[in-house]
Amino acid sequence: MMKKFTINSYDKQFNLKEFKPDDTAELSKQDIKKEYDKLQEKFIELQEVFYASKKYGLLIILQGMDCSGKDGTVKKVLTGVSPNGFNVENFKAPTPEELGRDYLWRTHNKTPMKGDITVFNRSYYEDVLVTRVHKDIDDETAFSRFREINEFEKYLVNNNTIVLKFFLNISKEFQQRKLENRLESPEKNWKFSEADLKERKFWDKYQECYSDVLSNCSTKEAPWYVIPADHRWFRDYIVLKTIVKTIEELDLEYPLIEGNIQELIQELKKN
Amino acid sequence: MMKKFTINSYDKQFNLKEFKPDDTAELSKQDIKKEYDKLQEKFIELQEVFYASKKYGLLIILQGMDCSGKDGTVKKVLTGVSPNGFNVENFKAPTPEELGRDYLWRTHNKTPMKGDITVFNRSYYEDVLVTRVHKDIDDETAFSRFREINEFEKYLVNNNTIVLKFFLNISKEFQQRKLENRLESPEKNWKFSEADLKERKFWDKYQECYSDVLSNCSTKEAPWYVIPADHRWFRDYIVLKTIVKTIEELDLEYPLIEGNIQELIQELKKN
Repeated sequence: MMKKFTINSYDKQFNLKEFKPDDTAELSKQDIKKEYDKLQEKFIELQEVFYASKKYGLLIILQGMDCSGKDGTVKKVLTGVSPNGFNVENFKAPTPEELGRDYLWRTHNKTPMKGDITVFNRSYYEDVLVTRVHKDIDDETAFSRFREINEFEKYLVNNNTIVLKFFLNISKEFQQRKLENRLESPEKNWKFSEADLKERKFWDKYQECYSDVLSNCSTKEAPWYVIPADHRWFRDYIVLKTIVKTIEELDLEYPLIEGNIQELIQELKKN
Repeated sequence: MMKKFTINSYDKQFNLKEFKPDDTAELSKQDIKKEYDKLQEKFIELQEVFYASKKYGLLIILQGMDCSGKDGTVKKVLTGVSPNGFNVENFKAPTPEELGRDYLWRTHNKTPMKGDITVFNRSYYEDVLVTRVHKDIDDETAFSRFREINEFEKYLVNNNTIVLKFFLNISKEFQQRKLENRLESPEKNWKFSEADLKERKFWDKYQECYSDVLSNCSTKEAPWYVIPADHRWFRDYIVLKTIVKTIEELDLEYPLIEGNIQELIQELKKN
């Protein structure tokens, strides 16, 4: 099933229109409940051995339009995971200091240490998305950045940082419903800004730019996953399943303790 | 009840021996269950308005001996809290780059932005604890640092960063049981190092140094809380209660939205 959402062909032009935001692979929330609970338990176990073994870093990139549920995904998928060795980095509009440097600098600075899992809520992909939509960079620059990003990710993977990239794919109608709900709730409407309305007008352009990202930045080393995100439960399920599968395949083990355990216990009892 | 665990007198010499690590204020786990669940819900609500209002930063400092449950406290108390605006910073042995600077540099660099809650798992207090126990600094330096730390915290509070300091107080017997459990579990014994045994030999010296910290670095602006931590449920309860009370007293409100909500909804429906 996962194959359907995985893009790892580099020579094909993908169009986001081919992907249904409300896809649930003919499953219902009830169908996956048991499996989802098990996945959560499994993830908590796996994260411990991942942290303990200190062999790899795991970088999880979340991208998506406003209201696609990047925050919600982090919150849901990572419930119960130990904060030790787990970080979330939010990348908002760059500061002058960040803009003064090359565009990979601020994100590279936050990539995970070995043993750690780091989620990027937005990432360097904004530097070929929002900037391109608003014509701060031209197409030539965008395509040159695609190549640089591919090289950068290949470098990370070669140096034991695993890269998982999730595009949370919602429909324009879904965004409208969410923005309306946001406006109507006194506890949520502070999140709303007129900029949201303005960005929404660029919806089609964003979809094109995302299609280019998927087509040009899906590599064997770091494929993109297009996650149907109109249904939150399905979004959480596919994201979690992908993370669990990725860590499981590493087949990690707890490091062995140095010294003799019984002797250490005796020593401990002495003082 | 909280008063019992709060140190906010600056002119008295405190001794850790006066505080019982297994204190539960004559309560049982069952007695507080309902209140605890409500506190958790309340905290999740409060964190949202804290983040939205962007008036204060909240710095939570956790200190304690090995096995005192610093990681566990973070994990338990913060279940369900949004990772947006919530950070945990672990301070281990300083790097050469960090040692090349003044001792407050690396922690100051990580203090919370307005709207954020940041937990320091260990902190600049290590620079008057582990360094003093092992005689890397003399008593004069330690006392001079106490004054500097007080001034630093006063400065933070004056600039809208709230500082909560929790000392997780365990008994020596409790630590022994925990270390034994750690050694006996194949999934946990990788955490054990001979250094744990060596540090344990300095137990009494650490208790003295902690007593000095409590006596000299409890201020009106930033008191220490001594949390009985032999019982995990009581530890979590008191820490959470203190955090909730602190944020509640700020009486924060969601910011008002700019513009007319009905007009914005109409605008939204147009595209």
